[in-house]
Amino acid sequence: MATRFKTPGLVGELAAEFAGTMILILFGVGVVAQVAAAGIGDHDSIAWAWGLGVTLGVYVAARVSGAHLNPAVTIALAVFKGFSWRKVAPYSIAQFLGAFVAALIVRWNYTEVLHAADPGLTIKTQGVFSTLPGNGTLPVGEWGAFRDQIIGTAILLFVILALTDMANTAPAANLGPVVIGLLVVAIGMAWGTNAGYAINPARDFGPRLASFLTGYGGAFRDQTGYLYFWIPIVAPVIGGIVGAGLYQTLIGRFLPSAEEPEVGRVPTPRDEAEVEATRG
Amino acid sequence: MATRFKTPGLVGELAAEFAGTMILILFGVGVVAQVAAAGIGDHDSIAWAWGLGVTLGVYVAARVSGAHLNPAVTIALAVFKGFSWRKVAPYSIAQFLGAFVAALIVRWNYTEVLHAADPGLTIKTQGVFSTLPGNGTLPVGEWGAFRDQIIGTAILLFVILALTDMANTAPAANLGPVVIGLLVVAIGMAWGTNAGYAINPARDFGPRLASFLTGYGGAFRDQTGYLYFWIPIVAPVIGGIVGAGLYQTLIGRFLPSAEEPEVGRVPTPRDEAEVEATRG
Amino acid sequence: MATRFKTPGLVGELAAEFAGTMILILFGVGVVAQVAAAGIGDHDSIAWAWGLGVTLGVYVAARVSGAHLNPAVTIALAVFKGFSWRKVAPYSIAQFLGAFVAALIVRWNYTEVLHAADPGLTIKTQGVFSTLPGNGTLPVGEWGAFRDQIIGTAILLFVILALTDMANTAPAANLGPVVIGLLVVAIGMAWGTNAGYAINPARDFGPRLASFLTGYGGAFRDQTGYLYFWIPIVAPVIGGIVGAGLYQTLIGRFLPSAEEPEVGRVPTPRDEAEVEATRG
Amino acid sequence: MATRFKTPGLVGELAAEFAGTMILILFGVGVVAQVAAAGIGDHDSIAWAWGLGVTLGVYVAARVSGAHLNPAVTIALAVFKGFSWRKVAPYSIAQFLGAFVAALIVRWNYTEVLHAADPGLTIKTQGVFSTLPGNGTLPVGEWGAFRDQIIGTAILLFVILALTDMANTAPAANLGPVVIGLLVVAIGMAWGTNAGYAINPARDFGPRLASFLTGYGGAFRDQTGYLYFWIPIVAPVIGGIVGAGLYQTLIGRFLPSAEEPEVGRVPTPRDEAEVEATRG
Repeated sequence: MATRFKTPGLVGELAAEFAGTMILILFGVGVVAQVAAAGIGDHDSIAWAWGLGVTLGVYVAARVSGAHLNPAVTIALAVFKGFSWRKVAPYSIAQFLGAFVAALIVRWNYTEVLHAADPGLTIKTQGVFSTLPGNGTLPVGEWGAFRDQIIGTAILLFVILALTDMANTAPAANLGPVVIGLLVVAIGMAWGTNAGYAINPARDFGPRLASFLTGYGGAFRDQTGYLYFWIPIVAPVIGGIVGAGLYQTLIGRFLPSAEEPEVGRVPTPRDEAEVEATRG
Repeated sequence: MATRFKTPGLVGELAAEFAGTMILILFGVGVVAQVAAAGIGDHDSIAWAWGLGVTLGVYVAARVSGAHLNPAVTIALAVFKGFSWRKVAPYSIAQFLGAFVAALIVRWNYTEVLHAADPGLTIKTQGVFSTLPGNGTLPVGEWGAFRDQIIGTAILLFVILALTDMANTAPAANLGPVVIGLLVVAIGMAWGTNAGYAINPARDFGPRLASFLTGYGGAFRDQTGYLYFWIPIVAPVIGGIVGAGLYQTLIGRFLPSAEEPEVGRVPTPRDEAEVEATRG
Repeated sequence: MATRFKTPGLVGELAAEFAGTMILILFGVGVVAQVAAAGIGDHDSIAWAWGLGVTLGVYVAARVSGAHLNPAVTIALAVFKGFSWRKVAPYSIAQFLGAFVAALIVRWNYTEVLHAADPGLTIKTQGVFSTLPGNGTLPVGEWGAFRDQIIGTAILLFVILALTDMANTAPAANLGPVVIGLLVVAIGMAWGTNAGYAINPARDFGPRLASFLTGYGGAFRDQTGYLYFWIPIVAPVIGGIVGAGLYQTLIGRFLPSAEEPEVGRVPTPRDEAEVEATRG
Repeated sequence: MATRFKTPGLVGELAAEFAGTMILILFGVGVVAQVAAAGIGDHDSIAWAWGLGVTLGVYVAARVSGAHLNPAVTIALAVFKGFSWRKVAPYSIAQFLGAFVAALIVRWNYTEVLHAADPGLTIKTQGVFSTLPGNGTLPVGEWGAFRDQIIGTAILLFVILALTDMANTAPAANLGPVVIGLLVVAIGMAWGTNAGYAINPARDFGPRLASFLTGYGGAFRDQTGYLYFWIPIVAPVIGGIVGAGLYQTLIGRFLPSAEEPEVGRVPTPRDEAEVEATRG
């Protein structure tokens, strides 16, 4: 496969992770601003636009970097799929920066409506940028959110591994990113109660920092005053490893080896990235 | 085809049916909990997330087990497509266990919101886990639900056979699972009034038992006190056979034999499973 | 192409048109019953489930009959694409019968909720089965509905010809039916105000007759008492011819001839049906 | 590639841009009329039907003209992809005329409900046809709208270049138009607050002029009386160039050259148009 994919080098990969995560967050944080500050749309709009943001971000980055767009994905692929550990920190930083810049753009563009809806830039619109236990209003505490983020990210990685496993039935015709986006739509609709489905440390911390630096003084705390910001960083990483391991246990080991290419299957770019990763 | 598909053995197949049904129910029961207990989303969110859960569960299991995820599907394939009768009971038990475990995970994760919305764990939130005639509120009795589940599951199997029939126009490029999910979205929007579109004995009884064992004392009865639980088990099995038979009668017998492979069609895994099953 | 497509004969084609239209209407009339009589869902649920019903009905019938499912489509293909005029009446009757039987099934299954919502079986729930000017409530008269049905069906046929034209960019991988369904979703969202987007004589008259025979005495009249039933029969036929002609004028004549097959394009079944039709 | 694509000539290309933009606006302006004047649907209906209108319009025009349907796309492709500058004005005029004619059709068909909802044809239903800062009600001024249209159109072009770049992971099987439509759905949900996501000068000015000529005397001004119409013309052109340039900088230059065709990738028509354009 090396003959058809000139490696773009680490700079290119980091640019792609930056750009892909930026596109993801331009839609993700953008839609929550539109719903929460402008009153246009509802929770399902958020679920759809976050999922479509994932789809579009993956299309942007897939060929160059594999489109992880999420440190929990990067780490799980390093643990189970041979992705280079040397690249884990650079990838994660690029993802964080993409999310950070995108959140600044949303913050700037939606200045008027954010200030109109919440002049003090309080917890009322903090949820535009970062997640809160029980979305700031439901009776779910830190433990409920921590547990939820492990489960939610485990589901994410379990299904991502299925959808990108050339030995399983990965969508072909370069349409894997659409189904990965639908996965995130479904997570938003079914697993968004306890902790706003962060399921991605870069998605949560980048916009959180952006909001803090632009007037949201309480950005790192939840509605009880607890220094909550670490939960959507740590729990997704744990959950991603759990989910990827369960996929390997329940499905992966029963599949034929990816070493045996199959006739008639069009590999997706992420597949290629993973195959390359196993060659390290 | 044997050369490209090393059979994973019955253990692998049961692991896949367990995992695929678990993913399906993690989304299906998850979304109803989010809507009914947390008040996030509405009936259409339920329709979308159930359908997407089917799509994702099928992607998980398709290559290893054929992704039935539903005893009504397994039995109908045994009756009409040569699926091995010896495997019907093991498949059904694995599907039930996947649904049961997934419901326990939802029950655990949504403990706080379930108890806040319904401290007594009554019929008010029973619908998170299992179905009720008229969804617990509409004036539909047991007969209305029984009849409805026969019709709804007949539609399900009629269209599944169309969507996985290599001699018809099955979606290619491994995208069949997306369209099968859209089928369940449409059933939820059009055939969810009388009995909550169980259309799957494992989907209904697994979560029902999980709720019973975790505090829902009335899980097996409906709003009139009737011991309702058998209806969404028996009626879908009948309906599945009716629908699959009608497909064979109205469409299947007019199609060229699947023995003659066609040029240019990419077989989907389920197609393969069925072809193998006919050789079984 | 004759070698890969054994013609199923007219009986098979009529069975397929019957079955495909039945599936379409089981979802289409089903969702309106669920929304209007049971109060589950809203107008967008109707748009989605109608569109998905089209997708699924087309998958059922595509290989055997070409999946017209609509006399306005059949007639437009006869005028512009060489579809056999001898088959126009049989196809139309099979489509009408499929819609009629499907509406009877919905009528039967939703007996309890229809009678609870509208004990007199009046115009209040007539819209479950057939269309009304301004959906029975908006200030749109018969002329507004007539005009609307010409425009709406012209849009339908214009885009269907684009989506099934092998010389244009028809979706491949057997996914044309999904996009055709999305076309109907969009028509429901944008062109459903004046006349409930019948855009299909069989869709409207079959369920109308079914409702008349099962207690809806006023089924053939609109809210002003006008004998409205002919408008959603005649106007779609006119509109379909207009739209198909405009497609040929604005797009079709600038495309290379379908006689020159292109490398790398997977023909869809409808394409095949049309190519065959031109030889017929 | 010249052997499989007989160029239809400029007349055909302009007919295709006219027809594709007409289809887009028949859905786009149609859905806003249905929501705003008839009260059927909500903002998400608008987002979906606009996006699906883009998908369907692209399918109509893709093979003949490349389906720009938007002067901001045409200009960005001229700047970065070698699209012929001689064709920029003709394409833009054809797009404007398609949008103008489509808006007249909607205006005509929805006469009754527009006059019922807004007898004076005021700014209350002006938004059916053209955009306003803050959608006419939110506290967003001209600068907020100008800035927003640069950002929104930059996102549009950034992602369109990714989705149509043969060296990246463009959707195959002729399904690119579906994903481009989903891009516009997501923009509607996340970037529609400040200026109604015009992101297309033809989409905005064509219907604006159509409404002015049919009774909307204030069509060129916003809610403050400002002569607003130029903002959704100028800002999208700037934004499109910015977005396309950023794509080239962050992603495009790290991809292998399109000169090296890859095995197993099905080119989409737009790809072909761009490749031809670079040879132009």
